[in-house]
Amino acid sequence: MPDPVILSVGASPVGDSELTGRDLFSVALAEAFENLPDPAGIVDALYVGNQSESYEHQIMYGTLLAEWAGLRHVPAERVEGCAAAGALALRHAVRDVRSGQCDVVLACGVEKMTAGGTAGATEALSAAFDRALEQRSGITAPSQYALLAERYCHETGATEEELARVAVKNHSNAARNPRAQYQSEIDAETVLESPYVARPLKLFDCAPVSDGAAAVVIASEEVAATLVDSEETVRASGVGAGSNNLAVAERDLTFVEGAHRAARGAYEEAGVEASEIDVAEVHDAFTVCEPLLAEAVGFAPRRAGVECALEPGERSDGWSDVELSTSGGLKARGHPIGATGLYQAIEAYEQLTGRAGDRQVEGAKRALCVNEGGVADAVTVAHVLEAT
Amino acid sequence: MPDPVILSVGASPVGDSELTGRDLFSVALAEAFENLPDPAGIVDALYVGNQSESYEHQIMYGTLLAEWAGLRHVPAERVEGCAAAGALALRHAVRDVRSGQCDVVLACGVEKMTAGGTAGATEALSAAFDRALEQRSGITAPSQYALLAERYCHETGATEEELARVAVKNHSNAARNPRAQYQSEIDAETVLESPYVARPLKLFDCAPVSDGAAAVVIASEEVAATLVDSEETVRASGVGAGSNNLAVAERDLTFVEGAHRAARGAYEEAGVEASEIDVAEVHDAFTVCEPLLAEAVGFAPRRAGVECALEPGERSDGWSDVELSTSGGLKARGHPIGATGLYQAIEAYEQLTGRAGDRQVEGAKRALCVNEGGVADAVTVAHVLEAT
Repeated sequence: MPDPVILSVGASPVGDSELTGRDLFSVALAEAFENLPDPAGIVDALYVGNQSESYEHQIMYGTLLAEWAGLRHVPAERVEGCAAAGALALRHAVRDVRSGQCDVVLACGVEKMTAGGTAGATEALSAAFDRALEQRSGITAPSQYALLAERYCHETGATEEELARVAVKNHSNAARNPRAQYQSEIDAETVLESPYVARPLKLFDCAPVSDGAAAVVIASEEVAATLVDSEETVRASGVGAGSNNLAVAERDLTFVEGAHRAARGAYEEAGVEASEIDVAEVHDAFTVCEPLLAEAVGFAPRRAGVECALEPGERSDGWSDVELSTSGGLKARGHPIGATGLYQAIEAYEQLTGRAGDRQVEGAKRALCVNEGGVADAVTVAHVLEAT
Repeated sequence: MPDPVILSVGASPVGDSELTGRDLFSVALAEAFENLPDPAGIVDALYVGNQSESYEHQIMYGTLLAEWAGLRHVPAERVEGCAAAGALALRHAVRDVRSGQCDVVLACGVEKMTAGGTAGATEALSAAFDRALEQRSGITAPSQYALLAERYCHETGATEEELARVAVKNHSNAARNPRAQYQSEIDAETVLESPYVARPLKLFDCAPVSDGAAAVVIASEEVAATLVDSEETVRASGVGAGSNNLAVAERDLTFVEGAHRAARGAYEEAGVEASEIDVAEVHDAFTVCEPLLAEAVGFAPRRAGVECALEPGERSDGWSDVELSTSGGLKARGHPIGATGLYQAIEAYEQLTGRAGDRQVEGAKRALCVNEGGVADAVTVAHVLEAT
């Protein structure tokens, strides 16, 4: 069966918005539907990634958005896997089309994190940790990732200065992304002089609290050919899912097994090697994630991941030539939790169709997106996307 | 492709439990896995229906339960569509097997509603209403259903006495269901003398706040044949989904279009007529739902649905011989929100395999399950199940 393709994409700007979740979705949908004839008439199913009901006291986001979009008789549901919800929604869309059950599926994600302020977001995100084993200790997302960062630095010799360069790189990329939350460059001093959130992670090592909505329309290649030119589509070639391990206790803190498995699954399904990936959006919720994931998905040798902030030509042997987080990543493009996986796919789509503007990676043909929920290894979904 | 079958089932008792959600799940899973060789080794995917993170401050229920069940490398996710979450999980399982993507899928549902008390449950359920249009008015689930009941009685001439008989019937059925929350019969006076919650609905017209977990193992017929005898399986023949209409405003209050569409879709996929259904679990969250749904899914002529409480032989012409809510329904078996759709499937499984004990409907060959989220028409999933 031919691979499903991305037919069109749309997204709101990421940031602290005055819009509600549904209005952010409207912005995303208007862009995704803009050049499609009768879009509401062709969508067969809707999946909505959304992390927490607490931000807007709203569940049933699938039904809500279906009605809002005029998709009144289309099966719609919310999927939830914390920050991996967006990629879970995308995975459903890809699989529904690949199995022949649907011709066109809308995958979207919405999060209105700022509704509860930083404290509300911290509280809502802590619900992703195992209540019996870890929530009760009062541990937060930054403090769990700090454990990973501390261990990573201890084992590899990576320094806070090197982690800071990941933030510098991603802000530099975001400065060229009109949808990014932070469109200004920063220097390493800014990171290093920012206050500790959870040692060794400082404020500028952390992704922000963000509002945003993103929409990706997936279609069968056959149907897509009747609607848009083939150079406007991107093939969704491979999907992989990682392991389930909610609690950080008893894990190998410096090897993200879920991402390793998810990426391997996606590569196998797509029939590609890690070394063939040109651009990748990895789940850099904290600076340490990018090196950890670069190693886990096969871009970097173990212990050399922190070189992700260097130009491809400056990295150690064994590193691939991949460009990481060209969108600015979660760190600087922003991280509206349930929508992040779709923002990743949109960046891949724009890179592979030559629409990435000032941040375009020349000749980009293959992309990997890695979206994670929970701390590093709890649930991971990877997609391989290819230029058509 | 052959239809998927239910391979085994398990559920905790429904009620006010001292167990946590994960421990309720353990009870359900132990029963579902009891007679399967190497069950954790054969499950290819897990879907968890769960309504609200607020009861236990826990998201990521898919990952949590996968890890808890020893399904560490199995793709797992939570699906959410308020009270339809259980049937959404089941639908994923059926479709994953039918499409050939999986051989064996575990669909389960968990809810720990009593953790927040009645007020907490009312608050959590109100998140299912449209925040911009209806939540802000302070309207609750009982008060929305009261609008439907008031209108139904006005249009059809049905009385509070007749609605009370639905509760009496369902308590009578639950008295023969060892998993039911209320295993005692009641009389009409008990219903009629109970306090109004939202006129015309009284306390005994309303489903209770319930804890519970249910698990259904779906497998391809081919794999099932290697594991259990064919008389122990039930064919999942048809699935249908209804319309999306979150707000009650501007709806036809006495015609549940979503259920009509969902049931029609399930009948078509199964190749059966409404008149061929022997037993049905419908979404009787309030007594008025059972007559409304009996009409919507084609069991009863319009305006005659309230005769659901009569014996099949006593009903008007045009009524089918179906037995409704043999489990006791949401009303008396109990309504652990995200698990309810799976409790419905379990009742169908037990009826169709002759395991329903004192509540067995002789000769039952076909069952319909209708599971709804939101008020009556927001999201509906219907399944047709058949004896093999």
